[in-house]
Amino acid sequence: MPGGLRTTMLNPAEMMPDMNDPDRIAQMAQLAMLLELSSSPKPGNVDRCHDYEDVSFSHFIASAVLSYPSFRRAASGESDIGRLILDTVSAWREWGLRGNTHFGEIALLIPLASAASRPGPLRSEISRVVESTTVEDSICFYRAFELAGARAADVNEMSLKDPGAADEIATRGVRLIDLMRLSQGHDLIAREWATGFSRSFELADALCEMVPRHGLNRGVVLTYITALSEEPDSLVASKFGIDVALEVSRMAGAALRSPDVISSAMEMDRVLISRDINPGSTADLIASSLFIALMRGLRF
Amino acid sequence: MPGGLRTTMLNPAEMMPDMNDPDRIAQMAQLAMLLELSSSPKPGNVDRCHDYEDVSFSHFIASAVLSYPSFRRAASGESDIGRLILDTVSAWREWGLRGNTHFGEIALLIPLASAASRPGPLRSEISRVVESTTVEDSICFYRAFELAGARAADVNEMSLKDPGAADEIATRGVRLIDLMRLSQGHDLIAREWATGFSRSFELADALCEMVPRHGLNRGVVLTYITALSEEPDSLVASKFGIDVALEVSRMAGAALRSPDVISSAMEMDRVLISRDINPGSTADLIASSLFIALMRGLRF
Repeated sequence: MPGGLRTTMLNPAEMMPDMNDPDRIAQMAQLAMLLELSSSPKPGNVDRCHDYEDVSFSHFIASAVLSYPSFRRAASGESDIGRLILDTVSAWREWGLRGNTHFGEIALLIPLASAASRPGPLRSEISRVVESTTVEDSICFYRAFELAGARAADVNEMSLKDPGAADEIATRGVRLIDLMRLSQGHDLIAREWATGFSRSFELADALCEMVPRHGLNRGVVLTYITALSEEPDSLVASKFGIDVALEVSRMAGAALRSPDVISSAMEMDRVLISRDINPGSTADLIASSLFIALMRGLRF
Repeated sequence: MPGGLRTTMLNPAEMMPDMNDPDRIAQMAQLAMLLELSSSPKPGNVDRCHDYEDVSFSHFIASAVLSYPSFRRAASGESDIGRLILDTVSAWREWGLRGNTHFGEIALLIPLASAASRPGPLRSEISRVVESTTVEDSICFYRAFELAGARAADVNEMSLKDPGAADEIATRGVRLIDLMRLSQGHDLIAREWATGFSRSFELADALCEMVPRHGLNRGVVLTYITALSEEPDSLVASKFGIDVALEVSRMAGAALRSPDVISSAMEMDRVLISRDINPGSTADLIASSLFIALMRGLRF
């Protein structure tokens, strides 16, 4: 891994003075998306070395490029998180991108970009950002979800598939944070919202330890496989059921324990691709944890 | 190529109304860099499937991310092209990026982003943009060149390697367009400046024909190999001499005529990598032509 030898954490004293500049925050959110995308092998996900049938590497790249203005708006003090998520998906569609590329990632990175621009520690500010979401945010999020063609998760008795869901959200006064709390049991993204992004911060700690030791690509891959081994992927569970998601986690654990983790991950990648199994929620968590690590000064 | 079937040119009537919005122009410049980077195989260059010893795929990604603000400034009416190029290289260094990543590309894309924001056709405006550069632009460009660690091209009697060159530029009143004209005989980037970006426009025509027919990746690869076969790469010539550059062009021609162009390009890639031969100027032209094609409405 050529970049590995030079991977480092910036000393806080050396850190750039502009880490709360909206453009810098937007850059780190975009870079987190692109580094997650290009790290390889990331079993079952689009990466440098393979595309999906319908959505290719270049569509994910375009999606990250087109997300930039929303990140900058979030980091410039615009607090309507649902609207920013909807505007991002609309920007993808208006430009001509089809398919679902990065819905999970922007649902994590937009609130994080907002929190990063605020004066307190990221960990406290992210809870304040999600806690202050409104019913209007829920309605926008619901529309964004539909427009993105994201996989529908049933939110307990309120299904995001249900055409009446938007009305019900409004009638019942369900804020976006409430909607996420309803889904936290079966959706990793929703759980981040409900828990102050605790898993993202944990994985950022892992990245800050692994990347300087193993280089960027290997550090990201090891963090991804570790994350997958520790918790079943909720996108896999929603498509194939919890048993398959647990099986994937066991495969990740076996890969980690093997003498050559990268080769085992490549083999696991082939198996998951052949079964059309895509642990996309875990990849989304890698993007949010990369953002946190980059904001802390991780360099490569 | 999964994306291929959906590759298209937007009908001008469907084109977004915001194509001269600074953010949209900056996005297309950044996307051009990232699509050039990730197209594969692009014999001798960093791509999705291999890194260089010292600069990896992720460094090129970070470099494209960090270039965004300069593109937006260029597209917002800031006309000091030399300063924008210098600020981009400074941003790379301040963030912690080392090595030369995209110097040739920003030297093409920053004036193009400026031209794209002006009212007339891109082809007329780019000539006006470069024609209006100043001695101050030359001095900034010279400093950027040094800071980027770009390969020094001898500008006739005035060498960019010469520590007195900046003084000489000032004393002799050499504008940036003059400096480029002095180098146009042996540098493809300089020749673009001197000729109103004529090669970039030609290659954009090729992309707009090839990409809808072959899909994005294959269309870009075919355009790159065709460009390389037609003209010797000036970065290769500056490192290894014109004979080696001509040999590389003949190899590209042979790959194009072979029954399986992509396999031949992969074989050519292995040969060039083993000899450390990197046709980087031709890759730079692919980025500028991708920008022009994207601004014309190329989608994938």
